[in-house]
Amino acid sequence: MTTSPPAQHQLNQVLATARANQERDLADLLRLVAQPSISAQGIGIRETAAIEEELLRSAGLTTQIFETPNQPMIYGEWLHAPGKPTVLFYGHYDVQPADPLELWTSPPFDPTTRDGRIYARGIADNKAQHFSHIAAIRAWLETIGSLPVNVKILLEGEEEIGSPNLDATVLAHRDLLNADLVYTSDGPITDDQFPEIAFGVRGMLYVELHATGPNRDLHSGHWGGVSPNPIWELVRLLNTMLDDQNLITIDGFYDNVRQPTPGARAAMDALPFDIGETLGRIGLTEMVPPAHLPYADRIMARPTLNISGFTGGYGGEGSKTIIPGKATVKIDMRLVPNQTPNEIWEKIAAHVATHAPGIEIVRLDGGMLPSFTPVEHPLADVVRSAVERGFGSRPIDIPLVGGSLPDATWTKTLGLPSFLVPYGAPEQANHSPNESYRIDRLWQGIATSAALLSLLADTDVDTTTTTTTTTTTTTDAQATDQEI
Amino acid sequence: MTTSPPAQHQLNQVLATARANQERDLADLLRLVAQPSISAQGIGIRETAAIEEELLRSAGLTTQIFETPNQPMIYGEWLHAPGKPTVLFYGHYDVQPADPLELWTSPPFDPTTRDGRIYARGIADNKAQHFSHIAAIRAWLETIGSLPVNVKILLEGEEEIGSPNLDATVLAHRDLLNADLVYTSDGPITDDQFPEIAFGVRGMLYVELHATGPNRDLHSGHWGGVSPNPIWELVRLLNTMLDDQNLITIDGFYDNVRQPTPGARAAMDALPFDIGETLGRIGLTEMVPPAHLPYADRIMARPTLNISGFTGGYGGEGSKTIIPGKATVKIDMRLVPNQTPNEIWEKIAAHVATHAPGIEIVRLDGGMLPSFTPVEHPLADVVRSAVERGFGSRPIDIPLVGGSLPDATWTKTLGLPSFLVPYGAPEQANHSPNESYRIDRLWQGIATSAALLSLLADTDVDTTTTTTTTTTTTTDAQATDQEI
Repeated sequence: MTTSPPAQHQLNQVLATARANQERDLADLLRLVAQPSISAQGIGIRETAAIEEELLRSAGLTTQIFETPNQPMIYGEWLHAPGKPTVLFYGHYDVQPADPLELWTSPPFDPTTRDGRIYARGIADNKAQHFSHIAAIRAWLETIGSLPVNVKILLEGEEEIGSPNLDATVLAHRDLLNADLVYTSDGPITDDQFPEIAFGVRGMLYVELHATGPNRDLHSGHWGGVSPNPIWELVRLLNTMLDDQNLITIDGFYDNVRQPTPGARAAMDALPFDIGETLGRIGLTEMVPPAHLPYADRIMARPTLNISGFTGGYGGEGSKTIIPGKATVKIDMRLVPNQTPNEIWEKIAAHVATHAPGIEIVRLDGGMLPSFTPVEHPLADVVRSAVERGFGSRPIDIPLVGGSLPDATWTKTLGLPSFLVPYGAPEQANHSPNESYRIDRLWQGIATSAALLSLLADTDVDTTTTTTTTTTTTTDAQATDQEI
Repeated sequence: MTTSPPAQHQLNQVLATARANQERDLADLLRLVAQPSISAQGIGIRETAAIEEELLRSAGLTTQIFETPNQPMIYGEWLHAPGKPTVLFYGHYDVQPADPLELWTSPPFDPTTRDGRIYARGIADNKAQHFSHIAAIRAWLETIGSLPVNVKILLEGEEEIGSPNLDATVLAHRDLLNADLVYTSDGPITDDQFPEIAFGVRGMLYVELHATGPNRDLHSGHWGGVSPNPIWELVRLLNTMLDDQNLITIDGFYDNVRQPTPGARAAMDALPFDIGETLGRIGLTEMVPPAHLPYADRIMARPTLNISGFTGGYGGEGSKTIIPGKATVKIDMRLVPNQTPNEIWEKIAAHVATHAPGIEIVRLDGGMLPSFTPVEHPLADVVRSAVERGFGSRPIDIPLVGGSLPDATWTKTLGLPSFLVPYGAPEQANHSPNESYRIDRLWQGIATSAALLSLLADTDVDTTTTTTTTTTTTTDAQATDQEI
């Protein structure tokens, strides 16, 4: 993909501006991450939304707030390039809870720079990444006075709790949000050596299991052998859900799992990752069973049933001898095309009703559909070239990534091609203590976003968008029979 | 069992003094329970020990502090009845942790009276119960100026963490502590209608299981299907330990479990408890499998494997999607004669090594041997008569109780007969939020302890103690082949 010499000259000017403004950009980002915005606990959301809107305006965008039943979304646009393509950037300004706090080297909301990285909750997931788009747009408008394409940006405040209101909000503003492509920077790059483009994400369903035993915690000596123990009830139920090869033993769980297409299979087989090195970063030497399964298949072809929390009885120091009155398990399931949260909810709820009718299962939210854009989509090459310009090397193609994003909102609800270009480095510790972001990645990300606008301007979207799937409203019943 | 008219007259005078001093006794008890003394967390121990020593002195006893490697014991004595029997009272001044605090109606260390009960952590387990002995001794000495028998009392500060130093301390003072019987009031009466005497307690072994996965909490989307999850590892291991009929499936676990003797069997079969009512108090309608097993057998003939805590991953509100880096399970096992903590430790450690070699098992303390005094012991009738005097009805015999007490220290380490006479009511919520003690039970307990001293004075211990087992030092290897 090449651009005209005048366009190349413009881009060079824009990138020079971005370099000159690094100190200001960094200060803006630090202010953004110093403000907590924990959606799971409803902390600091409005304050953060106000900072984001101010940043969008400072970049030269016209803004609107989309209210939702819960947390607001911030929308910005610049639409003064008639006949040119329109790109919609998506990001999220909410962050994960910061606990366990005692494992942070510096406080999670006191951004601290060490060894070329900024440490703060939410810096990587997702504040620095969507800030890169804002900084690129600002550099374009400050340098050239206009953008080469039409730009929209939507920042939501509920991504970390499963984007429960994104679909409805996007549908309510579907004309306003229409675009030729959606572009999201989130999640870490899988392997530091290879920039990447992902073409879909796993879906998710999150449930809680609540087991109750006696009407209060009991002395285990007086009641052991007589009273049920809700922890044991959960242990027994969980054990019916997964076999020793990590196959999920819930009836019908795999019914709608599609095998990868030959093209996706080829991309999966071509992945250049050093799995040993990848595992070494998390302190492991091997993957869980089954031993033969390639890394790519674990993330891109198989769903998971993960216990993200088990809480019952005494967890403090020393010994306490009780039969707890209740116990709770939190489970997140990662779904692959064409599974849907609704069908999986029905299957796991039926499983619990059969194996442990006394245990209550609760669905925490609507869940998230897996998403899919073809590796062969014509606009993919524009994105590949932008990444090559920003990062200095050609990205690899990832058919499906593990981390959940509400990407199906774009591919299914709006029927748009969607490209996921992570700017972050692998060791950034998303969702963990000591989350961090490499400062050099910030500059590379800004350059990539700036280059994307330039390269898109030379693209004839009338011919490319014909390959896009037609717009459908997404309900589980309408999930298409697509392959990944 | 009857006493001489002069002895009956003395006892009546003593009981009149106790009734006259109820206000003062209650004030002393409230001061004692207002002082936290949480051995598991090392909170308030010395302060409580000082109050206890002051109470013993106020009663007229000579006191000593027995230092241990951890928390001190308080010893008191009055030995001016040559030729008369000697009784050793045992109690503990430490209490369980008070959490979960939010479930307490009034603060755990702000004793509050409602509906004839005092609510406070530790009031029932064990402060009000051993205080009854102190108040009875005080009433005797205030009224008569002397006691009819020799009295010793030992209060320890580590019962709630398994009495790790009791055996060694008792052995170091074995001549000082020698007695004709040991008398302990602890635990609730099983059924409110029937005062009871227990002749032994289950033993205990407490372990923790530590499972580790990745070197930090991971994003379950990026790593699910690749990284092990320590919660799943624990669920799988636990599932190998117990079958669906609650039989423990650890090799050899039941090898040393003895069947009850015909005498104990008869006492078990004669228990008059209304099991439906007992279960109703804890909100249940049936006992855990196996369905046919009588209540008495569950407590007196079978060991248990109870999970007292399971802690891993996120336990807060809402959803957090992680693979936790570590998870912990706490297990208490209740042992019956002739199991020993050492042999059970070896068996469970071998089981973990076989089924989950990556999981670490830690023994939290030395554990506790089950104890045993024959139902047929001649001094049992003295105790039955004292209870009848204090409570107004004849007690029932319980061969073995579920709640752990270091009773084997008396029966095995010192080779003494030991009688357990709970003064508390069933609904007192030991170890739970809103622990409480019925005020009428306080007066009944004081009367029982006062009567015991009177009735013992008429007993010829030279003939009764010949039936006592010979003194042995207790090590697991020397556990006798006794039946319960």
